[in-house]
Amino acid sequence: RPSTSPVRPSCHKPTTVAARVAQNLSYWDSIHSDIESRLKKAIPIREPISVFEPMHHLTFAPPKTTASALCVAACELVGGNREDAIVAASAIHLMHAAIYTHDHLMLTDRLRSDQETEPKIQHRFGPNIELLTGDGIFPFAFELLAGSMDPAVDNSDKILRVIIEITRAVGTEGMVDGQDSDVEFDQLSCQPLRRLHGCGAACGAILGGGGEEEVERLKRYGVYAGKIQGLLSDMGRHEGGKVKLAEKWRALALKELEYFDSKKIEQISTIVTM
Amino acid sequence: RPSTSPVRPSCHKPTTVAARVAQNLSYWDSIHSDIESRLKKAIPIREPISVFEPMHHLTFAPPKTTASALCVAACELVGGNREDAIVAASAIHLMHAAIYTHDHLMLTDRLRSDQETEPKIQHRFGPNIELLTGDGIFPFAFELLAGSMDPAVDNSDKILRVIIEITRAVGTEGMVDGQDSDVEFDQLSCQPLRRLHGCGAACGAILGGGGEEEVERLKRYGVYAGKIQGLLSDMGRHEGGKVKLAEKWRALALKELEYFDSKKIEQISTIVTM
Repeated sequence: RPSTSPVRPSCHKPTTVAARVAQNLSYWDSIHSDIESRLKKAIPIREPISVFEPMHHLTFAPPKTTASALCVAACELVGGNREDAIVAASAIHLMHAAIYTHDHLMLTDRLRSDQETEPKIQHRFGPNIELLTGDGIFPFAFELLAGSMDPAVDNSDKILRVIIEITRAVGTEGMVDGQDSDVEFDQLSCQPLRRLHGCGAACGAILGGGGEEEVERLKRYGVYAGKIQGLLSDMGRHEGGKVKLAEKWRALALKELEYFDSKKIEQISTIVTM
Repeated sequence: RPSTSPVRPSCHKPTTVAARVAQNLSYWDSIHSDIESRLKKAIPIREPISVFEPMHHLTFAPPKTTASALCVAACELVGGNREDAIVAASAIHLMHAAIYTHDHLMLTDRLRSDQETEPKIQHRFGPNIELLTGDGIFPFAFELLAGSMDPAVDNSDKILRVIIEITRAVGTEGMVDGQDSDVEFDQLSCQPLRRLHGCGAACGAILGGGGEEEVERLKRYGVYAGKIQGLLSDMGRHEGGKVKLAEKWRALALKELEYFDSKKIEQISTIVTM
């Protein structure tokens, strides 16, 4: 990434920025930690080891995604509790893990286009196991979600909406929208990962009880956040143009947040400004 | 298969059997035809062709599975309408198609064990497209299901139960239960396909408004039907033992149906007796 220092409006004094950054780091860290412990409970290494060891490993091997963290942050922004969003956030992480696993699968005829420039990935398991485990992780995520149905709080409709959001992000819609008109995003396989950010924010807003306008704005905010992350992680090409584009998206992302109480958006906004 | 003639209790006269077989063939054919036309509507070949042509092709390329047909038959047996089960049956077919596609994917290191003895599959698309399309078909199935939520009939809880059934059948539970104690079913990758039969029958019973006992019995019936199909399609090993085993499972399957009105089970029972 071009810079690790936060890029924020100049009205903030450096000390305030530093204090907030420290605070925000621990905000995101605490979310990631909560998601991780929920997933560790859901996928213990148990018998048969041949199934659950690869599943456990491949769930936690990929780099963390902010898409799942955004789900929790969006839920909290609209007034929900972390617990309302943690299963959906876990499901989004599982989608990310399954896509990541299959994206790095070695296929017969040639390296996939997105692997040619990437550093080699350490494969602990063979491609057969990676394929099957990825295929097992996808439905497991929906099983977790569907299983969080609770007649006591009558959340079935919300969960079904969340399932639709996730399936669209990782399914055909994510593949179709691969043709991003804004920039040379032509790598089909990476597109679902970026779309997961919009999906994560929308799911969090839905589960936190947000209104339609809040859901839509947070979804767009998440999409910009995902695009920025995708852009900045794809180092080395058109460096100057990329920084400018990231700034444009950052401004558009922050514009979506203007709809919300300015005191409540500090934490969620750092995901596009750090 | 060892025999194409129906094996039924001897109390039926040949003419009755012939008449019923003709009628039943058209019963299953009509179900398959309804599922196919629903899927063709759901997955038209549209732009972008690079996404939807492989998806369409790989959805219809695999051999038909009786698991999806069982879903409709079980729904009708417990008194539901075909329309109640057709989306779930389509989703089950999509699971079958995605699993089939990934089962026949060519991976780098070696042929997968289940491919070594199989006839070669014609691959119209490269492994990269097959992998991504399979990954797109899985979530699309859940999107279809979640999208069949209808506040007018308040079916959200039923749909979530169906999603749980399907995710369990194709997810870790299906992989874990690969160790079938009854026979040398050690091919991990084929197990979800067999489990889909029990799942299909259970989903149909749930959506048709069946009671818990009906759901459980039809699930067990479906599991036996899937095991029989798996056994008989896996030709060439231990022929004599297999026929005997199939007969044992057939008897156990039909025992589950004794719980239901004997006049209503004629059609569904042919799936294990033909």
